[in-house]
Amino acid sequence: MLKKIAIFGVGLIGGSFALALKQAGAVQHVVGAGRSLASLQRALQLGIIDAIATSPADAVADADLVLIAAPVAQTGAILASIAPYLQIGTVVTDAGSTKGDVEASARLALGTKISQFVPGHPIAGRESNGPDAAIANLYVGKKVVLATLPENGQADIERVASAWRQCGAVIHQLSCAQHDVVFASVSHLPHLLAYALVDDIANKPHADMLFQYAASGFRDFTRIAGSSPEMWRDISLANQEALLQELDAYQLKLTQLRGLLASRDGPGLDAIYQNAQQSRHRWICAIEAAEKQNKEGGD
Amino acid sequence: MLKKIAIFGVGLIGGSFALALKQAGAVQHVVGAGRSLASLQRALQLGIIDAIATSPADAVADADLVLIAAPVAQTGAILASIAPYLQIGTVVTDAGSTKGDVEASARLALGTKISQFVPGHPIAGRESNGPDAAIANLYVGKKVVLATLPENGQADIERVASAWRQCGAVIHQLSCAQHDVVFASVSHLPHLLAYALVDDIANKPHADMLFQYAASGFRDFTRIAGSSPEMWRDISLANQEALLQELDAYQLKLTQLRGLLASRDGPGLDAIYQNAQQSRHRWICAIEAAEKQNKEGGD
Repeated sequence: MLKKIAIFGVGLIGGSFALALKQAGAVQHVVGAGRSLASLQRALQLGIIDAIATSPADAVADADLVLIAAPVAQTGAILASIAPYLQIGTVVTDAGSTKGDVEASARLALGTKISQFVPGHPIAGRESNGPDAAIANLYVGKKVVLATLPENGQADIERVASAWRQCGAVIHQLSCAQHDVVFASVSHLPHLLAYALVDDIANKPHADMLFQYAASGFRDFTRIAGSSPEMWRDISLANQEALLQELDAYQLKLTQLRGLLASRDGPGLDAIYQNAQQSRHRWICAIEAAEKQNKEGGD
Repeated sequence: MLKKIAIFGVGLIGGSFALALKQAGAVQHVVGAGRSLASLQRALQLGIIDAIATSPADAVADADLVLIAAPVAQTGAILASIAPYLQIGTVVTDAGSTKGDVEASARLALGTKISQFVPGHPIAGRESNGPDAAIANLYVGKKVVLATLPENGQADIERVASAWRQCGAVIHQLSCAQHDVVFASVSHLPHLLAYALVDDIANKPHADMLFQYAASGFRDFTRIAGSSPEMWRDISLANQEALLQELDAYQLKLTQLRGLLASRDGPGLDAIYQNAQQSRHRWICAIEAAEKQNKEGGD
């Protein structure tokens, strides 16, 4: 049982974490902190938090666990604001979508207290944001990647892992560098590609006619281009190096496909389309099997 | 009321057309034709068709309307097989996803009877295929593009349009060339891009680890890469010219984005992401409004 947790950013991600721990009976007292007083007051009203912190010192005093669930670009400043008040028994984690930049800013902000920071990334979300979007079951069956640092002690890692497990999540462990390579490939690049396609079409002179005939395949392909531009600008810049590498590999693949198409190489196109279709099919089967197992394990 | 229609290809598309017309009381007799006797027998069993044609001549004899709902690459051969038996009062249409190649093969196959062929493309589908996937309401509220030829008479176009309207569809008219430019942009290119991404990831040495962390955004982005590789190889080749143009424009856009990312140009990235997000939002609002209107109009 956690006596006190502090949440910086009481929106969808932080709020759902608090609600899930409360529902599991895993925490006694939740303190909220953040830049928007209106959000904090709403979170208090909704029972997500029990109190609003009066200062960074107040937020982290005697806390077992601190979660930073604010935009990635703010992580360094928040860590710097609490660093002087961090007690030895307190573990800090975050929920940012990139980890290399978070690690770098955490080392700057925390100095010798870096061992108390266990970077994390819950792979979960919803279309909506803010305290009102928070739900207790957001993380059930979802992955949480702990991008642990060499300095982290096993007990501190376990405290963070255990809290997420109480929210229903499944824990994975990667290094920060591994994390960023993986998510550049399966998340950050697809976002960039979807934004690029919609922007490309929207800038054509006959854009209105084109959009008129876009159907459900286009809607699903571009769904992630409905995400927050500011957030994805920050993620793109934060994970610049890995994202550039993935983008270059993808451009090579497109150039290869262009060559096959230009030379009317049917078998060549077929081989790529088939490999993609079959790989995706195996992946879907694997995640469905894993989801089924998680559900059965949870009963 | 149509006295007789003939359907070449009694799967999802052709079967749903027949079921919808029957449900609307808009046809007296449906004859099925195609390469697979098992599919034809199943369609007969399911009440999709009333009889199996014994020959191309038998299929089209005294038919008011003939629908070719077979893979695009077969359209020319089917048209050639029925051309000698096409009576003056019969109108032929198709359901292929590309129209320039269909027009070319139709001109070859039909010669002076080309005016009787009204090319079409219903924008509808499901994950599953075959006669068992056919449903009477597949086309309700969906668009059907009639890619009319200069030779088509207004009464023949209207016969095809009227049949689709009885299925609940909304009729749009484009030239074959316009059709192919539009669908290269909003359908064929996204398919190629989705296949390319999955193939790119699947060929990496750490593909298993990458797929393990792919989540719902990736699933939606790549859903169209689950489509039939053979069908999309044929569509890519059939619409080669327009698809190459769209692919080149997209590669230019990616190169522009790469430059912004490499130079850490946050406002530049933001401008593209924002334009995409806002354009998509306007599009979603427009299709939702149109769907609402269609529903109200249909009540």
